Amino acid sequence: MTDPISRRSFIKASTIAVGSAAIPVTANVASAATAKALASNPTDVTRQLANYVVNSKWSDIPEAARKEAVRSVFNWVGCCLGGARHVTTNRAIAALAEFSGKAEATVLGRSERLDIMHAALLNGITSHVLDYDDTHLETIIHPAGPVASAILALGERQKTSGEDFMHAFILGVEVECRIGKAVYPSHYERGFHITGTAGVFGGAAAAGKLLGLNEQQMVWALGIAATQSAGLKDMFGTMCKAFHPGSAGQNGLKAALLASKDYTSSNGAIEAKEGFAFSYSDEQDFSQITDNLGASFEVSRNTYKPFACGIVTHPIIDGCIQLRNEHNLTSDQISAVSLRVNPLVIKLTGKKSPQSGLESKFSIYHASAAAIIRGSAGPNEFSDETVRNAEVISLRDKVSAIAEENVREEEAFVVIRLHDGTLLSKHVAHAIGSLERPMTNASLESKFKDQALTALTGDQIDRVMAICWQIESLADVNELTRVAVPLRP
Amino acid sequence: MTDPISRRSFIKASTIAVGSAAIPVTANVASAATAKALASNPTDVTRQLANYVVNSKWSDIPEAARKEAVRSVFNWVGCCLGGARHVTTNRAIAALAEFSGKAEATVLGRSERLDIMHAALLNGITSHVLDYDDTHLETIIHPAGPVASAILALGERQKTSGEDFMHAFILGVEVECRIGKAVYPSHYERGFHITGTAGVFGGAAAAGKLLGLNEQQMVWALGIAATQSAGLKDMFGTMCKAFHPGSAGQNGLKAALLASKDYTSSNGAIEAKEGFAFSYSDEQDFSQITDNLGASFEVSRNTYKPFACGIVTHPIIDGCIQLRNEHNLTSDQISAVSLRVNPLVIKLTGKKSPQSGLESKFSIYHASAAAIIRGSAGPNEFSDETVRNAEVISLRDKVSAIAEENVREEEAFVVIRLHDGTLLSKHVAHAIGSLERPMTNASLESKFKDQALTALTGDQIDRVMAICWQIESLADVNELTRVAVPLRP
Repeated sequence: MTDPISRRSFIKASTIAVGSAAIPVTANVASAATAKALASNPTDVTRQLANYVVNSKWSDIPEAARKEAVRSVFNWVGCCLGGARHVTTNRAIAALAEFSGKAEATVLGRSERLDIMHAALLNGITSHVLDYDDTHLETIIHPAGPVASAILALGERQKTSGEDFMHAFILGVEVECRIGKAVYPSHYERGFHITGTAGVFGGAAAAGKLLGLNEQQMVWALGIAATQSAGLKDMFGTMCKAFHPGSAGQNGLKAALLASKDYTSSNGAIEAKEGFAFSYSDEQDFSQITDNLGASFEVSRNTYKPFACGIVTHPIIDGCIQLRNEHNLTSDQISAVSLRVNPLVIKLTGKKSPQSGLESKFSIYHASAAAIIRGSAGPNEFSDETVRNAEVISLRDKVSAIAEENVREEEAFVVIRLHDGTLLSKHVAHAIGSLERPMTNASLESKFKDQALTALTGDQIDRVMAICWQIESLADVNELTRVAVPLRP
Repeated sequence: MTDPISRRSFIKASTIAVGSAAIPVTANVASAATAKALASNPTDVTRQLANYVVNSKWSDIPEAARKEAVRSVFNWVGCCLGGARHVTTNRAIAALAEFSGKAEATVLGRSERLDIMHAALLNGITSHVLDYDDTHLETIIHPAGPVASAILALGERQKTSGEDFMHAFILGVEVECRIGKAVYPSHYERGFHITGTAGVFGGAAAAGKLLGLNEQQMVWALGIAATQSAGLKDMFGTMCKAFHPGSAGQNGLKAALLASKDYTSSNGAIEAKEGFAFSYSDEQDFSQITDNLGASFEVSRNTYKPFACGIVTHPIIDGCIQLRNEHNLTSDQISAVSLRVNPLVIKLTGKKSPQSGLESKFSIYHASAAAIIRGSAGPNEFSDETVRNAEVISLRDKVSAIAEENVREEEAFVVIRLHDGTLLSKHVAHAIGSLERPMTNASLESKFKDQALTALTGDQIDRVMAICWQIESLADVNELTRVAVPLRP
């Protein structure tokens, strides 16, 4: 629910999307500003991408990308388990399960088995419903959802090794993030939820890789994906936000399946004048799609949320938790909490008195208070119950926030005044979970366990985590799906 | 494959979409130019539409709208039968049928039965694959596909009377065409295939009506539709063009089913700042959605294609066929064919030497020659075979065309010179099939029969046509679907 409006200043200038192509690029317009995009041959973007995905070998993927991909999938499975019992998930299943075909695929953390397309939809929904998944900071795409959802389901249907699964995953993330970079931020600012709109390409590419599509079929799969691209930011704060990665996974999978039977689309759906990039965005930089393809890997820049809310609040939450732990603070010691933040934080999360768990994700006041009292900011800290908790409300009312332009988005200042007059302060330059201070594997495990306990027993959770860490070596990904569901009574 | 780029001049000035709102309208901006849109309360558009659909009664629908709706459904069933055996249909079924759930619904003209969501997809594809369906000229939406596909499938699952079916159909067409009018032509010019992008709202509204959604659920259904809105014009000339009404029907149905289980979306998905109209279009006129709601009916302005190609070529084809019939012309008498047309005709259909049936739909030269030789311009005149026919090629090479600004889009001039020097000329002010010269019921029947013969026997066709004309009186729409499939061997 909490994707910030613009994430550009969260990332280093060297990696900012769009870059030179603030001017729309067309194949027939040449200028200094568009030279970079033209150099990448914008008439051939879709085919270059398809060619890359089709011909990529596992041995082409460097160790660092593989490692981060495993962490991405590990985090994704934990989030799926955490969202498995959410009311959003229950309602989607109530509406759609009766239309499921052959029960070939797993909804992680649940006993229902569905056809692969419905399973893709559901695992995409569960992974995102707590706003606790992963973030590609340069585009604020949540990359794992659309991709892993599509190929875990497909992988259960056709025997798929862990290596093939991870290879397809890495390529899917590459495709969705590069397409996202080509249109971000203009596309996002128009109102599109980029995890849905770009995610469908990732699902299609990854599923197409597992299906063994040839280059022409992969071009079509990307085209069929393009013509299903959807997801509006107006849905933030509703059940439809989580529907977006689910639908992207499902429709990406559908695109690949159609292409595998030679269902045709256009040949340049990403770059054509009436294709994705020009219809859905006012700015395009196609070099973001084609430059260094195969040499750099977007999955290496994936990050994982330590807190179940939008990323702009994370530096403040981090600072609050640090002060609490360093000084063993309890709320009765505190007379005031003063925050200094980038203006975007107030703009996006300035709700003073949230009334529901959902709303509380948009309140920096609630987030600070809950974090100081609980020492964490997981799903429980953003529940309806916590929002109504008297201690949280009392501390929340002592929190004030000042917006300052010279405070970077990725930093924050917290000052806590105690009743005895003591001032405790903390400057967070980069929050835990950022690229500069990545979540450790141990933190990811602890996040995983917290979420999974709503769906599985402790023993099961340990087994599922162990399998996730070793996913590359699985002979068949159904070794994972078999154990990631509730025990039969 | 042949939607023209702009259809505005095809319609009377008084009904032109957009009108006063060439300036983007927001809730907080007041000016003379936006007064009309503000009068319709753009903060409440989605809810007004939902309220209307939920509360509409059959007795509220005037006789003229009902009659045109029956003709629309009649024409739609014929087109579904005509497209049932197309290679596009075969490939979609090959890719997706194995994922179908319970076989509760019919693919018209085929023996496969699928779950309702796959049936909706397939009937939407078949109805549009020959480019021979219906056209709401003001928006160039092909209205029946997304709506009828969704509710015929749903109607088979839950016993649905012909009256309820037609009521839902009329409301679905109303919703999609009004939303289309609010964003046309800007939306279309950005690259969106409006039959897909607006069609999904029509499918959702119609299915939601049959499901008996309450107002809040209908708001959500429209929201879930909005966040699935998709379809790119870059797909014209490929199998994905027909995918659009199919996918719109399927996703509209899915939206209604999710909403029926209280799966939430935002409350103002059409008009919100990051909702459909602002994200997918640069101009908005919300009064097109809310003005005269319940008093005027878009279905009354539906038209049916007499020729299986884009509507800009229809006046020329009409003129050619008239001259041929009036003078019993054969191609060996003809030395030259001269056309005078609006420039748009050459722009869209200027291919001199088409190489495939698909390409031939974009050749005014081919279309004229085939029409003169055959006396018709149905699917057979745009087949690969006809494109390679020596007589057609020979006459095609004698056709010349001049673009003139002062020739209106809806008119055309044809002059045929015979070898003996005789000049035969015809001015077509409005082509057959236009609002001014609508297809008669007899013409619709003859079009229906031609198409249906590829799927059904003559006896069956007569029975299906009779049922379609009486659809309002059916106790159960499955009386139609039962007979509109091939006889068991």
